[in-house]
Amino acid sequence: MWPQTKLASLLQIAYPIIQAPMAGGATTPELVAAVSNAGGLGSLGAGMMSPAAIKDAIIHIRSLTAKPFSVNLFTPQTYHLDAMLAQQLQSALIEIGQPFINSLPPLDPPYAESFEEQMAVILEARVPIFSFTFGIPEAGWLTQCKQNNIKIIGTATTLDEALALQQLGIDAIVAQGFEAGGHRGNFLQATENSLIGTMALIPMLADKVSCPIIAAGGIMDARGIIAANALGAAGVQMGTAFLTTHESGISSAYKQALLSATYDSTALTTALSGKFARGIRNELMTKLENKFTKFLDYPIQNKLTQPLRQAAAKQNNAEYISLWAGQGVAATQAIGAAELVNQLIKNVEHQ
Amino acid sequence: MWPQTKLASLLQIAYPIIQAPMAGGATTPELVAAVSNAGGLGSLGAGMMSPAAIKDAIIHIRSLTAKPFSVNLFTPQTYHLDAMLAQQLQSALIEIGQPFINSLPPLDPPYAESFEEQMAVILEARVPIFSFTFGIPEAGWLTQCKQNNIKIIGTATTLDEALALQQLGIDAIVAQGFEAGGHRGNFLQATENSLIGTMALIPMLADKVSCPIIAAGGIMDARGIIAANALGAAGVQMGTAFLTTHESGISSAYKQALLSATYDSTALTTALSGKFARGIRNELMTKLENKFTKFLDYPIQNKLTQPLRQAAAKQNNAEYISLWAGQGVAATQAIGAAELVNQLIKNVEHQ
Repeated sequence: MWPQTKLASLLQIAYPIIQAPMAGGATTPELVAAVSNAGGLGSLGAGMMSPAAIKDAIIHIRSLTAKPFSVNLFTPQTYHLDAMLAQQLQSALIEIGQPFINSLPPLDPPYAESFEEQMAVILEARVPIFSFTFGIPEAGWLTQCKQNNIKIIGTATTLDEALALQQLGIDAIVAQGFEAGGHRGNFLQATENSLIGTMALIPMLADKVSCPIIAAGGIMDARGIIAANALGAAGVQMGTAFLTTHESGISSAYKQALLSATYDSTALTTALSGKFARGIRNELMTKLENKFTKFLDYPIQNKLTQPLRQAAAKQNNAEYISLWAGQGVAATQAIGAAELVNQLIKNVEHQ
Repeated sequence: MWPQTKLASLLQIAYPIIQAPMAGGATTPELVAAVSNAGGLGSLGAGMMSPAAIKDAIIHIRSLTAKPFSVNLFTPQTYHLDAMLAQQLQSALIEIGQPFINSLPPLDPPYAESFEEQMAVILEARVPIFSFTFGIPEAGWLTQCKQNNIKIIGTATTLDEALALQQLGIDAIVAQGFEAGGHRGNFLQATENSLIGTMALIPMLADKVSCPIIAAGGIMDARGIIAANALGAAGVQMGTAFLTTHESGISSAYKQALLSATYDSTALTTALSGKFARGIRNELMTKLENKFTKFLDYPIQNKLTQPLRQAAAKQNNAEYISLWAGQGVAATQAIGAAELVNQLIKNVEHQ
């Protein structure tokens, strides 16, 4: 049953345990390197990082490990600015956001980092593995990855999406179940039609897709890894479990909120970023949802709420930041990343 | 890994595979008996059956098997009749329901069968196992079950609900994951706070509850059984997989809709019964949801839509009936119930 050598040898890692690329600052070079050094695959969640910061992080990761790692980006989304709604949201945010902020900067473009510039860094650095979510990047980028011997991992939430990804000739597909924390990776189906629990999603994809499937969503320990393997997955991707590791770069307020969770206290929301994401419900999420039924498109909403979230994080207040987490959040541990990987490996082997 | 002797010996069955008690007419005495005779646990979904029909079904089941079986009821719900909305819904249904119906009978109580009379039949018949969902029956009923040596299985969708059920001193708890078809069993948390994927739910409950946990939701084959076992479940409950067995009593239109599904085409809705339930999206669900944002309380809404659903079923039309199904619906097979149980047992043993 273990290790799943096909995917592991494809990615040149010892164990098919992937630390999820989380874009909220969790995936420090120390975390990525610790996971890779322990025999798993560390991943830099670079979707919201500047090209310069990505470049620095890759250099830093390489100074800490000679093992493979991955860098993840968000495929650009089309969006439309609803200026009236933006104004209403800004006013509401300033009201909600007291005493963290007194004003908000004008909501001007660019709303997100340049994907083209981010990709240029990844290609130039020839990272071992490039992964993407939110859709399919233009074909030219994937061709260049292949020319540079960069392995490619895509993200699917439905069978249709997995079949579309398989057509690209990529190396593996993360199947993101309903339980998963953070942003939904759906791109062909609407969110409401792409919320499939991991238990149902993995066998459905394993039966119809020849590309190796990496199970994500609700997996917190060796039991989840064995279950995912039984369902037909070639490996697992775990995010929430790594958020509370010592190497994780999230704020202490965020970490404490995760470690305090005793049950599934998460919800899916578009209030914080404009794109559905799962996180622990807090005052910011609730207050915005109580005032508005609709938010700005991603990434505009994300940029809109960022100053408040950053100010609250500085004051170590968990109620006004994003607390992305999966439904297994009650099982988080304060632990070193390598120790977590070793624990998973040992417990899978001893099961 | 198999069989999970603790739960199996508690329920006096050979394998901890429970055919879910489905209230839509699927669980014929032939189905229940075939599953029990094959070594699993057949279950009569009696929630919507008259006391006389339950009595007859139990006699019929006992004529077909000497093995244990279970009978399931819906714990009574509090409800309020919104007369204005009822009138609007009736008008809309008559319009939507052409050419199946031209009128609807007055919406008078009782809206559901009498739980007290249903329980009286179960106690008098001394069925081997009583199971319940939608909440906790009054303590007196459970005491009488215990006095009559009737084993008891409850249904939980969250940790809080499982802990509340454990307090009752019952024998096992079905943990209903987000993927599950049919009605949600939540009773302490609101539906939106009780939609936890099976992959996250089972370990959470297994860690905190000493009562044996039966995993339900998204389990379609031996892979799901092994996965559920790895996650900490003592057994599994499978509904959708048994809906398409030869012994299942659902209409051929419903069966065909299930067998034709090639991906997860289900959605959660209150449109058909007033209580959230998962089924394949069809015209009735979509048209009602497009016209109304709110429906009558369960079981009033259920009674309201029943004449149309029955008329459509008679004409073998799948678009105007309820098509309850779980997210694993693409894996349904046209197969005998005993053959399905044997297939599951063989494949678990050979894994």
